[in-house]
Amino acid sequence: MYNLNMTRGEFLSMMALAPFARGAASSPINAQRLRQRLEELSVHGRPAGGTFADGVSRVAFSDADVAGRTLVMRWMREAGLNPRIDAAGNILGKRAGTDSQLEPVLFGSHIDSVPSGGNFDGDLGVLGSIEVIESLNASKATTRRPLEVVVWTNEEGVAFNNGLFGSRAAAGLLVDKELDQMWNGTNQREALKKIGGDPDHIDSARRARGSFHAYLELHIEQGGNLDREHLPVGVVEGIVGIDRYDVEIRGFANHAGTTPMPDRQDALVAAAELTVAVNQIVRHEPGRQVGTVGHIEVSPNAPNVIPGLVRLTVELRDLDIAKVGRLGKEIQDRARATATETKTTIEFHTASHHEPALADPKLQTAIEEASARLGLKTKRLPSGAGHDAQSMAHIGPMAMIFVPSVAGISHSPKELTHWEDCANGAAVLLETVKNLAA
Amino acid sequence: MYNLNMTRGEFLSMMALAPFARGAASSPINAQRLRQRLEELSVHGRPAGGTFADGVSRVAFSDADVAGRTLVMRWMREAGLNPRIDAAGNILGKRAGTDSQLEPVLFGSHIDSVPSGGNFDGDLGVLGSIEVIESLNASKATTRRPLEVVVWTNEEGVAFNNGLFGSRAAAGLLVDKELDQMWNGTNQREALKKIGGDPDHIDSARRARGSFHAYLELHIEQGGNLDREHLPVGVVEGIVGIDRYDVEIRGFANHAGTTPMPDRQDALVAAAELTVAVNQIVRHEPGRQVGTVGHIEVSPNAPNVIPGLVRLTVELRDLDIAKVGRLGKEIQDRARATATETKTTIEFHTASHHEPALADPKLQTAIEEASARLGLKTKRLPSGAGHDAQSMAHIGPMAMIFVPSVAGISHSPKELTHWEDCANGAAVLLETVKNLAA
Repeated sequence: MYNLNMTRGEFLSMMALAPFARGAASSPINAQRLRQRLEELSVHGRPAGGTFADGVSRVAFSDADVAGRTLVMRWMREAGLNPRIDAAGNILGKRAGTDSQLEPVLFGSHIDSVPSGGNFDGDLGVLGSIEVIESLNASKATTRRPLEVVVWTNEEGVAFNNGLFGSRAAAGLLVDKELDQMWNGTNQREALKKIGGDPDHIDSARRARGSFHAYLELHIEQGGNLDREHLPVGVVEGIVGIDRYDVEIRGFANHAGTTPMPDRQDALVAAAELTVAVNQIVRHEPGRQVGTVGHIEVSPNAPNVIPGLVRLTVELRDLDIAKVGRLGKEIQDRARATATETKTTIEFHTASHHEPALADPKLQTAIEEASARLGLKTKRLPSGAGHDAQSMAHIGPMAMIFVPSVAGISHSPKELTHWEDCANGAAVLLETVKNLAA
Repeated sequence: MYNLNMTRGEFLSMMALAPFARGAASSPINAQRLRQRLEELSVHGRPAGGTFADGVSRVAFSDADVAGRTLVMRWMREAGLNPRIDAAGNILGKRAGTDSQLEPVLFGSHIDSVPSGGNFDGDLGVLGSIEVIESLNASKATTRRPLEVVVWTNEEGVAFNNGLFGSRAAAGLLVDKELDQMWNGTNQREALKKIGGDPDHIDSARRARGSFHAYLELHIEQGGNLDREHLPVGVVEGIVGIDRYDVEIRGFANHAGTTPMPDRQDALVAAAELTVAVNQIVRHEPGRQVGTVGHIEVSPNAPNVIPGLVRLTVELRDLDIAKVGRLGKEIQDRARATATETKTTIEFHTASHHEPALADPKLQTAIEEASARLGLKTKRLPSGAGHDAQSMAHIGPMAMIFVPSVAGISHSPKELTHWEDCANGAAVLLETVKNLAA
């Protein structure tokens, strides 16, 4: 295939576009348009002077987010979806079914990102959903059920530290005072108005239980399982439960030269013992549970002063929330022993508790069958990350389609999903939607 | 002694002034004036609206430092010391001996502090030295050797991160380009001029080897040994050697939810293993060596991201520099194993290496004999902290007198040495000086 008249860049570009190397032999999805739109959307939030490879900072409610939403709404309009913005800022567009009495099949994702994030997290699910509609339009296909595409507001939760905002609003999961939160000098109400939301009628964004036949979300895995096993499609069993603890360790700050070792109350030594314990306890038993100390603050944090105070976070995740609770208890038991040994005090405060959200078994089977029809191998796996699908699980059946993340990298400009895998994911979404809406 | 007509405050105040409860029955030192001057000096750098108990921020070259130096020079003048400022900003004042051909006995300390430091570190040695002169003046005593009181510039090294500045200048230990350093928008030369120094003739501050008969420094212990053992006087065997390493641990930042435990390259887990190892290795053998991880920086330092990069400091101190080196090697060996286990890289860079400075054996004996004459018990111990005395050890015999720090607390507003211990220390200094200068 190598053409000597092509530049190396042209060749690589062509190779990158070559669809379905991992699986299906042909696709009803316009892979080239999907790629072009992912690239076009990536401009909004791209670092100045950067390229697609430099990732994106499209934090919810930012100017980049507004610009991205405007572009996506244009594409929805072009696909005949007639988008509207609900009170929570979610963008919704419908394609009619032949039986308007039936509840729609709902699918979509988000386009907001973390700072210095990647161009696939969320974006693929939104643009893949629009491609599903485009594909049906192109083949003049009809479905019995209406189809509804959704772009959720502030999934990442960088702004206002309240992720899954739009989907939680839809599921009736917003908490008291949430609209009164401030972030970066602006409040949640003003931010909502900026994207066309209506904070004064936020309840109108709520959807009743059973108001959709199924919720589907196409998303990059963000972990390395599919990539490592060379599998094109992951069928999500559910979204893990998460317990996060804020831990405060109090020792006594003192001179690092003059304080004998036995007299020390070193809060960082205690924190280190605890960090090692979290890692050991979580790895000690079989399973896919994870545990992380990701954030640590040390005071006074000087090379020649024994640390007197450490604050750190412990985060535990698993699909089995009982296991999450049991691991948390084991870690706290170990911390009590560490506190005694190190002459410190260690206090655990539950910072957040998220229940797992299980995917609907029938929908999982539907995704597997759709993949099989396309000749794509699948694997069931939990989602370690949170997704809008977990909000939807509160009010109806949901399932998620994962596609491989190269090396499992995510929330980084290095986040990458091969174009063929993007197209495969959209094709599986299309096939599943057609089946569920038939 | 309790007098019902006294308030509790008056009683406590009187008790605090009561000299020599731990030891000597009477003192040639004016304990009340020493206390008053410590209190008066503490005003310069005191937090606004604070009291003596709120400590002091008298960083070298600050306005508070300049004001404190002016006050100390007034007291030196009142004691007939005729103070001068050398090119390095050190304040020096002489009292003549009967034989002007003899080299002087030199003694003093510093009055600069760390931010939010205490009122005894350095100050006691300076004001105690002036009291020695006052006491000799009061009794019209003469000495054969001249006496010289010194207030060293920038002992703490908060400014310009180059501690022991004045004493290192005197010992010829300044390094290349040291005068060109910048700190907080000002350079070392301008800072020196601010306190009356002369950066263009900095070499003139240098003292020849043998230009003093002995250097003595009275200082608070800053550790808890004397306080715990209820001993009024410590005789310093030497100032420990210090190796400080900057350690960089590189893992890989990734999503804390989606990255399975076996796939992680968690730089903070590696840092925690290393911190635990430093503590274990240093405690594993008998001796007074200390080892500290005091500073740690984690990136990206978010609860839901596996830490990809950690920078931390490892500091090791002992009077035996061979032991310091051996412990450093053991820690690095352990780090290599940790790096392999955690799939990280761990690099050690030597940030600084300070040789130990041993106190002169004859001077140690002289301090012990002086203490015995005053009825004060002593104990030999190393100094875990650095002091100007270590610079002086390069060019002549030195020794240090320690007095108890309550609970070993130092570099803190809670730093406390009982007034009686302050007076005891000055009395031992006086007795030693008289003996050495006789």
